[in-house]
This record gives sequence, structure tokens and C-alpha cells, in this order.
Amino acid sequence: MYKVIFISFAFFALTAECQSDDPLQYVKPIIGTERMGHTYPGATSPFGAVQLSPDTDTIPYEQNGKYNPDVYKYCAGYQYDDKTIVGFSHTHFSGTGHSDLGDFLIMPTVGELRLNPGVASQPRSGYRSAFSHSTETAEADYYRVKLEDYNIWAELTTTTRVGFHQYTFPASDQAHIIFDLMHGIYNYDDKNVWTYIRVVNDTLVTGYRVTSGWARTRTVYFAMTFSKPFVGYGSRKYDRKQAYHGFWGHFDQNHNFPDLAGRQLRMYFDFKTTEGEKIKVKFALSPVSTEGALLNLRTEAPGWDFDAVRRQGQDAWRKELSKVRIEASPAEKTNIYTSLYHAFINPTVYMDVDGSYRGLDQLNHKADGFVNYTTFSLWDTHRALHPLFNILQPTRNADMIRSMLADYEQSAEHMLPIWLHYANENWCMSGYHAVSVIADAIVKGNTPFDPNKALDACIVTSTRRGFEGLGSYMDRGYIPSEESGNSVSTTLEYAYDDWCIAQAAKKLGRMDVYATYSKRAENYKNVWDPSVLYMRPRLADGSFRKDFDVLSTDGQGFIEGNAWNYSLYVPHDPATLIKLYGGNKSFVRHLDSLFTMYLPDKYFAETEDITRDGIIGNYVHGNEPSHHVAYLYDWTDQPWKTQERVRMILKKEYAPTPDGLGGNDDCGQMSAWYIFTALGFYPVAPGSDRYYFGSPSVNSAVLTLENGRTFSIEARDQSDKNVYVKRITLNGQPLNRLYITHQEIMDGGKLVYFMSGKH
Amino acid sequence: MYKVIFISFAFFALTAECQSDDPLQYVKPIIGTERMGHTYPGATSPFGAVQLSPDTDTIPYEQNGKYNPDVYKYCAGYQYDDKTIVGFSHTHFSGTGHSDLGDFLIMPTVGELRLNPGVASQPRSGYRSAFSHSTETAEADYYRVKLEDYNIWAELTTTTRVGFHQYTFPASDQAHIIFDLMHGIYNYDDKNVWTYIRVVNDTLVTGYRVTSGWARTRTVYFAMTFSKPFVGYGSRKYDRKQAYHGFWGHFDQNHNFPDLAGRQLRMYFDFKTTEGEKIKVKFALSPVSTEGALLNLRTEAPGWDFDAVRRQGQDAWRKELSKVRIEASPAEKTNIYTSLYHAFINPTVYMDVDGSYRGLDQLNHKADGFVNYTTFSLWDTHRALHPLFNILQPTRNADMIRSMLADYEQSAEHMLPIWLHYANENWCMSGYHAVSVIADAIVKGNTPFDPNKALDACIVTSTRRGFEGLGSYMDRGYIPSEESGNSVSTTLEYAYDDWCIAQAAKKLGRMDVYATYSKRAENYKNVWDPSVLYMRPRLADGSFRKDFDVLSTDGQGFIEGNAWNYSLYVPHDPATLIKLYGGNKSFVRHLDSLFTMYLPDKYFAETEDITRDGIIGNYVHGNEPSHHVAYLYDWTDQPWKTQERVRMILKKEYAPTPDGLGGNDDCGQMSAWYIFTALGFYPVAPGSDRYYFGSPSVNSAVLTLENGRTFSIEARDQSDKNVYVKRITLNGQPLNRLYITHQEIMDGGKLVYFMSGKH
Repeated sequence: MYKVIFISFAFFALTAECQSDDPLQYVKPIIGTERMGHTYPGATSPFGAVQLSPDTDTIPYEQNGKYNPDVYKYCAGYQYDDKTIVGFSHTHFSGTGHSDLGDFLIMPTVGELRLNPGVASQPRSGYRSAFSHSTETAEADYYRVKLEDYNIWAELTTTTRVGFHQYTFPASDQAHIIFDLMHGIYNYDDKNVWTYIRVVNDTLVTGYRVTSGWARTRTVYFAMTFSKPFVGYGSRKYDRKQAYHGFWGHFDQNHNFPDLAGRQLRMYFDFKTTEGEKIKVKFALSPVSTEGALLNLRTEAPGWDFDAVRRQGQDAWRKELSKVRIEASPAEKTNIYTSLYHAFINPTVYMDVDGSYRGLDQLNHKADGFVNYTTFSLWDTHRALHPLFNILQPTRNADMIRSMLADYEQSAEHMLPIWLHYANENWCMSGYHAVSVIADAIVKGNTPFDPNKALDACIVTSTRRGFEGLGSYMDRGYIPSEESGNSVSTTLEYAYDDWCIAQAAKKLGRMDVYATYSKRAENYKNVWDPSVLYMRPRLADGSFRKDFDVLSTDGQGFIEGNAWNYSLYVPHDPATLIKLYGGNKSFVRHLDSLFTMYLPDKYFAETEDITRDGIIGNYVHGNEPSHHVAYLYDWTDQPWKTQERVRMILKKEYAPTPDGLGGNDDCGQMSAWYIFTALGFYPVAPGSDRYYFGSPSVNSAVLTLENGRTFSIEARDQSDKNVYVKRITLNGQPLNRLYITHQEIMDGGKLVYFMSGKH
Repeated sequence: MYKVIFISFAFFALTAECQSDDPLQYVKPIIGTERMGHTYPGATSPFGAVQLSPDTDTIPYEQNGKYNPDVYKYCAGYQYDDKTIVGFSHTHFSGTGHSDLGDFLIMPTVGELRLNPGVASQPRSGYRSAFSHSTETAEADYYRVKLEDYNIWAELTTTTRVGFHQYTFPASDQAHIIFDLMHGIYNYDDKNVWTYIRVVNDTLVTGYRVTSGWARTRTVYFAMTFSKPFVGYGSRKYDRKQAYHGFWGHFDQNHNFPDLAGRQLRMYFDFKTTEGEKIKVKFALSPVSTEGALLNLRTEAPGWDFDAVRRQGQDAWRKELSKVRIEASPAEKTNIYTSLYHAFINPTVYMDVDGSYRGLDQLNHKADGFVNYTTFSLWDTHRALHPLFNILQPTRNADMIRSMLADYEQSAEHMLPIWLHYANENWCMSGYHAVSVIADAIVKGNTPFDPNKALDACIVTSTRRGFEGLGSYMDRGYIPSEESGNSVSTTLEYAYDDWCIAQAAKKLGRMDVYATYSKRAENYKNVWDPSVLYMRPRLADGSFRKDFDVLSTDGQGFIEGNAWNYSLYVPHDPATLIKLYGGNKSFVRHLDSLFTMYLPDKYFAETEDITRDGIIGNYVHGNEPSHHVAYLYDWTDQPWKTQERVRMILKKEYAPTPDGLGGNDDCGQMSAWYIFTALGFYPVAPGSDRYYFGSPSVNSAVLTLENGRTFSIEARDQSDKNVYVKRITLNGQPLNRLYITHQEIMDGGKLVYFMSGKH
């Protein structure tokens, strides 16, 4: 990793010198854009509905009838190693391991009109252009690049709901703005359900697109306006088939025809430009209607001053990022502020400025007294991102819960969200971790919603017998291996979620619920095989499955993890888990082995989202189920190993470079882990009010809380060598325990770690 | 035709005896369901949004990659000669020559579950059932049939927006109601764009379907409710492809899963039934939302009394039909009342009970102070149907014009409708005949809308240079043959429409417009070739096209007509046309030949929508361009020939039998022709206030007008032989002209024809 860090310093040295105190200088959206991070470098506002970013390739989902594995690389549309940019589209996930989106690609060109994107290997085979990182700037809410094929400078910024493009053209009689409505991420045949376009006048275009991808029935409405009237426009339709052609011949529909629809459409708008002329495009999105998009456009971005909109967007980021003021090395600051940046991208705002949004029932609703959010990657983000929000973004976190409760009301299945985006449940991953997010907020007192109604929703969700193995889980206390490929990991996750429900019930004084769910929370024991000391698939007849490979992630009853890692997944009851392992010594030995063993190549090949560099023994940080694991030493007699391991993970899995994320950022969960860990504590079991100590990598930090208080952290004598915490004081008093409570943080005050090179 | 009429008497003898004075007994929806009529026998309310009718086959648009011409037979879903019923769907065109619709097919079955419709030739190959006309009853707003395969009696009735099914089952543990969301008329691959379904509870299902057929982007929302809870339900998806399957496996989506979406879906609902148990289904439609459908359902059909809803629907028909009280033979009464029934089906109501409708801009609107209509087959219906409405349905006709003006406001092309259905312009046929409908209303003083704004819309529409040849027409006075396959007929139609604009302008005192459009109205002369005495394709260079076949309808510059017929299409200026033909004698000779010549087989084969029985010489009544032609003798010295010819056409082209329509009813235009002609006068040139006399086939008629007055008609000594009108009196005074004016009718009064067997 030495080499990598060396590059990173060179990479960002200049910026770091210029503006000493502005946190924005440490935000490097380019981090994670190479290899596995699946982040995007483009422009977005905090939690913005628009993510306007370059896409570097259009990868068909299938090649020669087979799934094309390269698709996975393009979850965020951009890969750092690519040499061409296809164009700039308006929606992107940040760090996901599945994808969708990539809506409404815009590309400025000059010269011969090309409506196909072309291929990267053949210059000028389409509208795409070569680019170079040397002319590329990526900041929070600002992106700039030179499109070399056209000698066009492209600049992007956003408001929450509007993408703002500024293109500086050369002189040309044949300047075009391509508008590709076929483009998308995970763009397979038949993903585009329908497109409808209306050219309202010579500067305004409205419409919508329906896709059925990861989101099954997803409609995005838009309104696009140009700073200068186009001199003409046209379209081409690439539909597989269309039976009725009859009388459309009354018009030439390919040129200057204002009313278009179809499955597969591309458009172009023609201009004449003078040297250095700027053509600007504002592109507003809405979840409900083109009228909503127009309202968003007119409300958020009424003018044409690109720099003013950029300033406004960057000020919004400055405000969010300044909630954490850091003293640390420039690399560390870059890691932390970029992590904060990535943490404050998702969930995304999902409503018009007037509160209108599309519900899970595909009806339009108005958010009454809250901001509606979407993009809930809850299997990932319940672990550290939402707990981070309870500290730094409590109002937003409560609104996210309100959004989830609205989803629950609108759900045909009467369930809280599992993985929800754009009014669609994609059911991705396992468990019902919305209950963790809700319980965490209830336990921590962040409840500007009705907590009892929220708890009711948790209870209903956790008793939906038709959901993956849940009926059997309720009847038997585990999911039989016959019923699910993830029978063990899902049993473990249900048990943790049930513990969350119990904690929330306790807080609300509903002791019957507490009792029921405390019992369910012990269900993890039902898949523990004491004869091998692993969680293990169990059959309906009660016996453990014979065939069992503890290193494999394939077909062993776990999802995104093997038995080695997942057997440690009892975040709510490590003490009992340690007993199951035979006590302290045996457990420490197991943990040590996890971090130090060599995972044979055949198993490594099965492991998703991770590079050989990024793996630490058999510990896989790129997948979330182990995110609490390094902290488990806190329950043993060797908590110094937590301190040592987490510092190693910080170094090995994160770097301030394009390839600096050791796995998918997963909508901010990887970044939230970084932020907590760098501050020295971590929410091992959300739903508890405790954060367990690790080893801070900052010299100091000041958190400015929404309640007006500040919570300061100091890590005296902290360095790359001094990673061990000898003692801790809170507000000057010794803290003789390995955790701090949420209330202690929210009360404001000062936490001092006394660091040392020896454990 | 003798045989046909003989059958008809036997067919309806019983009913005619029973209820002597009720016009409903003379309505035979089965008329036109055999061969070319393209009517449907099912249930609908006057101008109802729901047309609930049996479909007898599901015809794929293509067979072995080629267009399947049988598709054309199924424009209304039902063919009288078929032996099986596939099910009952909720939307049907009446009498069109192109198609769409057939939404939301319901079919009750018992026994083994079959989700495919199967084929007619193989019993029990699918859910379809054999049926027999002997157990079939078709009345206005009531249809009943026995589904023989299942021993189920099916009954249908409607309110304006709700279809009401009543199924009488045998005892069965396996009773099903199939809900086929793939079914459609003109059902080709890729027509279904998207379907979304939600099973709200065990008696309520909501959802929508988007299709791209004749209507390019058509969405129909529904709410369906059962009189009895189903015991279970399920679905099957027939999508060609769906890339994301990942985690949907969390649920069994095929059984009791309440949240479905896809391109191709079929559902079923299971019941247990006792012998004779009735299960009822109410099915509401909405153009804007499932909430709108629910509102319509609860407002129009809150209860479960099938007979009460039927009574209400039939009373509505009784009220509409009683506007015309007839003395005539039973066969004549059947023809006239069924014609009135067919005339009062289209255009159809297109809004929820609260006025919400989807506009041509694909946005939702509220109809402010008018009823919004759709299904405007204007090329057909401007001729006689809308003039008939100006007499019998003036309020509705004005609302139809208001609807068209709203369409104009919402149109991206800034044009009045051409052929519009379900918020989509399909651009079918030629001309801009909405201006004829508007001008006719203005000239006749039926203007509870702003007539000047309406005229402005006409002017804008008529100057849309991009529309078929219109730019050239405006510049040269004709459409060059190079520009359009219908260059001659469209030139003629534009000229007539322009005359309409001139008449409306004159009425409104806008004499500049009058002058401009009176001049344009003469453009028909520009395609007249005096060397051959035919309208003839003309090239851009001004010369007439050399290659020219006056009998062919194929590639000669005309649409749905040959030069023989279309050369007579100057409805607004027959006097000048006669001069072009060389005067009275030459013109009469030409007309006589038209009706008496034998059209060689090769030309007959080209002629659409007509059977050999239905052709009269070379006169094609089944296509509309000649509908005024028989009346042109009124401008010659031999008006008795009009009288003779129209009586012949009444007999030859219409009969009270399933095959009794000589061509497509075309949304009521063929029927409106019948009604006018049977009453003895016809609107040769809508936009004029004159109705020209023919020969009445009724003995007497009383029209009850909306203004409270009555207009009576008596045809003294009228019989099949006494077809000649010797003299006419109006309110006792001799009428020494060949027309009556609109005002004279609306003033009320009495018109007496004195008939004779000699001319």
C-alpha cells in the first residue's frame, strides 16, 4: 500500500496547500472510481435527487446471449481507467453492488451528427469523446472535463433536483447536444419500458421515461431547458417493433416533430456556436410529473448563472462537512472528508419542492411535514450510516424513517423497506433491517415521529410469514436449509433485528413485545453447531447439514460471507457468542486466525467485491457482515487488538486515491465505518446506545451537533505507531469502560484518548 | 337481399310483439356483428366509457412473421360466425376499420385452471368456451350468454364508467375468474407496454395497463371488485425477458402475492361455488388513476344489485332513443332504433366522475364545465353523425367540440384532432375535419363555447405546413402527387374543410377570414382535369400524372375511393362541379353510370370494407367519401333519382340482421346516414345549415328536441313503391325548395312529404 499512498500525496498536494481551512478541498469524489468502489466523480448536492456525472461506457447486459460480467464495473457509470466519456447522465447510485439509473444522457458534440455512442476502442465511432484525467476536475458538486474529440469543455453542477450543464464550444456551424434516452446503467434489452417526449418550444423539452430494471416500475419525469434556442432538432427511434405506422407519415417525425414516444429513442438539438460560446442546459427531475419537474426547475434554478449555482451547491456541502472539524494529516483529512461526502449522498431526496412524490403503491402522495427520501440500501447502511446520521444528521435520519413508514403504509406486502429505490422495492439482500434503523432512533431518543406506530410497523414486518423463511423462523427458531440458500445468515440477521425490536419496545415500555422479541433474538443459537464451533445450515428435521465448507461463500447458507466471518454475526450479544466459542481464549484465537490466515485462492475467487490487496487474512472488509468484527476484541481481555486491527483496516482498505476503496462504498456504509473508526468508536450493535472504542486516527475532531452543542475529541500523541489507547477521559473524568453512550455525545463535551505505541 | 330480410323478420318477430311501444325492443346490438359491420353485441351505456362485450377470438397481429389479415375482422372483438367466446373485455370500438382496445378480459371457468385462451378449433385447449346464439341475448346495455364448456351463465351490464358482470356458476370446488391482462384487440407482440396490479384485499384489485397500439401511449386504470371474497389467487408472467430476478425469490410471487407488474400478465381468482351461485364483478375504468377508478366505482355502482344497474342503463337508453318516435314497419323500426343506438355510442365519455381526464399532453386535467369525450373518428363522423348530434344531442355535440378544443390546447402540433382516442392522436385518414364539426355547430348556432376561439383553432390547424402536403397546398392550391399517395383526395378534403372555415367566419363576421378561405375552398378545381372530366393527380410541375386508372383505388391519389367516386367530392359546391362535368345532362349521365355500371372484379378486389352484395354499380356506400353522392341529383333536373337511389341504398346496405351492415359502421357514421335518409333529408355539406331532401322510409317520426320543441315528420302514402316525393309542406305551407334549414327543424313544427309511386 505504500506505493498507493505515495501517489495519493502527489495527486492532491496542490489543492491541500491552497485553501487551508476549507473542508471542501479534502473532498475527492474521484476516490473509489477505480476498481471496486463504485462511486462516481460527478456533481451532486447533499442527499441530492440529481447525481450528474460522466459515464465512461455503455455496457450491454448481455453479450452473445450471455451475461456480461463487465456490467458490474459500471454500477456508477464511470471507471477511472477508461479513456472515453459517453456523456453525462443525471442519476447514479453511489457505491452499490447492483445497479440501475443512468437516466437522460446529455452529450455535446460538434461536426458530423452521430447518434450512437460508439465503442471506446474505435475513435469517432460514435458520439463519445476521448478525455484525460489531466483536464479533469472533480469537486463536491462540481465536475469539469475537456471532451477532446470536440474541443468542448464540459462543466457540471447541481441543485437538489436540477442538473446544470455548461458547455464551452469551439466555433461551429454543426454544434449538437445529443440527448440519449436509451442510455442507462445495467442497460439490458427490454429495460426501457417507455419514453415520452414533448418539445414545448425552442428552449424547453419535457417528458418521462419508464424503466423496469432493478426497480421494477420506475418512472422519472424531466424538464430540460437550453440557454439558447436550438436551430433545429430531430430524433431516431430504435424500437424492436411497432405495429402501427399507418398515418404517422402525415408528418416527418424525425425532424422538428415535437411529440415523440417509444421504447428506444435518441434525440439531438442543433446549434451554431462561436468560439468559446457557452451553451448551458438545466435538467430538472421529478418523481411525479413533468409539471413537477418544471416546478423544481423554476424554484431551484431560475437563472442561468452557472457559477452562482455551483457556489450555492458547494456552500451546502461546506455546511454539511463543517459539522466535523478535523486535525489530522492531509491524507487522513482527505479520507475523512471524502468519507463524509460519500456518507451524505444517500439516501436521496425523492420529492418535488412541493412535497409530491410517487409512493410504493405507484400513486402520487404529498410528504406532510417531512422530506421524503429514497435509495435505502438498508442491509448495508443500518450498520453505521444511520447511526452516524443519528449523531450528525438527526433531522434527516428521522425524515428517512418517516419516509420508510410512508413506504410501509403504501406497501402491498405490509412491510417496511428492504432495499428501496424510486418507489420500488427490489428486495435485495436479507433481513428486515429497517427495524434496526427505527430501533436505533427510538433507543437514542431521535423520534420526531410516532415511535409506537413505528414499532408496530416493525412488528408487522417481522411477522410476514411469506417473506424469506420467516414463517419457519417463527415456528422453529431458524430457517431450514431447504427453504433458503441463505438460511444461516438470514436466521442470524433476523435474530439481530428481533433484538432491535426488543430494545425499542423496552424503551417504549411495551414489555410484552420486549419479552417476545428478546426470546426471538436468541435464535442465533439455533444455527450454532457446538461440535464444530460454527454457525451452520440446519435442516428441517433439526439436524445440521453434513456437507459444509467453512471457507466457501458459495452455497453454504450465507450471503456475502463465509461461515468464518458470519459465525461472528451476533452483534447484539458478543458475550454469549464468546461463551459458545468456549470462552475468551478460544474466541481470541479464532478472531486472530480470521485476520491472519491465508485464504486459499479458490475461496478468494468466490469472494465478491474485493481485491487481493483488500483482503486481510480471511477478513473481508469490502462486504458488510464483518464490519463489527474487529471491535469484538472489546469483549475479550485483549481490546488492544481491536485498536491494532482497526488501524490496519483503515490503512489497508482506504486510501485517498481513485482506487482507494477496498470494496463497494455501498451507499456510504464503508465511508461511515471509516468516519466512526477514525473518531475512535463504532456502533457495534445499532439499537444499543453504545459506541465501542477502537483507536482514533485523527489528532482531534470537533463535532457540531444539530442541538447546538459541540462534542470534541482529542487523541493525544496519536500517530501511525501510537495506535493503542491507554486511557480515556470524558469531560476530564476517567472513563473506565470500553464504550461511550449516544447521550454522552449529544450532551456535548470532550473525549480525550491517551495514545501510546505499546499495548 | 330478399333472403336476408326474410330471416330478419323471423329473427325478431317475438320481441316485436311483446312490448309494443318501447324503443328498446327495436335495438339489436347484434346487427353488424357478422362480416363488415365491426359492431359489438355487448353492453354499453349511451356514450359510455365502458363497452363490456364478448370477444370471440384472439388474433395475433402476425402469423409466421407476416401480417395476419384476419385481424381486421376482429376490430370489435366479436364475429357472429365464431363458435367460442374467449371472455369479456371492457373497451371496444364500434364499427371502426382499424382497431385497438379490448382491455381487461374477464372469463369465469370451472374445473382445471387454464390460463391460456386456447384455440377455437380445439375444445378445452384453453379457458375459452363454446357458446350458441340460441342462448345469447343482446340488448342495449345488457348481454347474456351461456358458456357451455362450464355451464356458466354470463350476464353483462354497465354504467358509464363501470362494467358489471354477473356469473351464475354450477357447484364447484374449482371455480375461477380468469383476468387476462395480455388480451387485447390488434394484439401484436410488443403492444403491451406495461401492466401494474395490486391486490388490495380479498375483494378488491386495482392497477393499470399501458399499451402502444393505434394509440401510441395509452394508459387505462382500473378498479375491480368481487361480490364474494376469493379464497386464493395467482398470476403468471409471460414476459419475453426480465433481467433482474435476484431477490424476488424472497416471496412466492405466483401465488397470493399482491404486488405484480410486467409486460405480459395473466391472473386468476379462485372460488368455491354452490349450484346457481352468482358471483358478480364490478370493473371500473379511469383515464387518470386507480383512485379515479375507485371513485367512479363507488359513485356509479355502489351496490350489488345487477338488475337495478341494468334497469338504470336501459332507462338511459330509453331516454335517448325516445328522442325519435317512429311509425314504420318493424324492420324499419329495428333499423332506425339500432342505428340510433349505434349513433349514440361514440364519441365516448373520457373523464372520471369528478371531471379528471388525461390530456393529449399526457398530463391530467379537469374538464371545467363540460363532459370530456374521446374516440373521434372525424373523417367519418363529420359527415352525418355530428350534424345529427346538432339536432338530437346539441349539448353533447358542444361538449365534444369543447373536448376537441382542449385537445387542441394540449396538442404538441397545435392542431385540432384528426382521429383521436384515449389521449392519443393516431392521425388516421386525411383532412382536418374537426373544422367541419366546429363550423357546422357555429353556423347552426350551437355554440355554448367561444366560437371565435374555436375558429382560431380551425385557422391554426389549417395552416400547419408540416401536415400532409399542407404547405404545398397553401402555396400551389393543390398537393403535388409526389408529396402524398392521397394527393387528390386530400386536396379535395382540404378544400371542403376550408369552405367550412369560411362559413364559420362569415357567421362570426370575420370577413377577411371568409374571403381567404372561400378562395382556398375553390382549390378542388386545381386537381380537376377537364380533358378527362376527373379529379386527377397533379405533379409539382403543374402537369397531370399520365399514369391514371379511374376505377382503381390503389395508388391513384385517393384514399378509400377511386376517381369515379372521389371526383364527386365537392359537397360544398355541387353547382360548380356540375358545370365542370359539362352541365346537367352530362353530370346526370355520369351519376347514373356510377350507380349502374359493373365494377370489374379486379377493382372490386381492391375496394375495402365492402362485399359484392353491398356494392351498387361502382358506388361504394361502405366507405364514406360517397355518402353525399346520391343526394347530388338534387342539384340536377332529376331529383327523383336521389329519391330512388337513397331508398335502394337503404335496402341494399342495411338490414336488421347480424350481417345487416354493408360496411364498417365507422363509429356511427353509417348509422347516422341511415337515420337522416330514413327521415327524408341529409346534410350534404356540414357547415351549411341546409339538409337536402331524399325520400323518407318512415311513415312518420316525431323528434323531441332539447329545446323542448318537437319536430314532426309525416310521409303520406309512403311505401316501398311510393318512394317519390311529389311535394312537401312545412307547417302546412308548401316548401318550394329541395332543402330544409336547421333553424326550421329547431323551431319545431311539422314537415309533410306527399309520396307517390311515380316520379
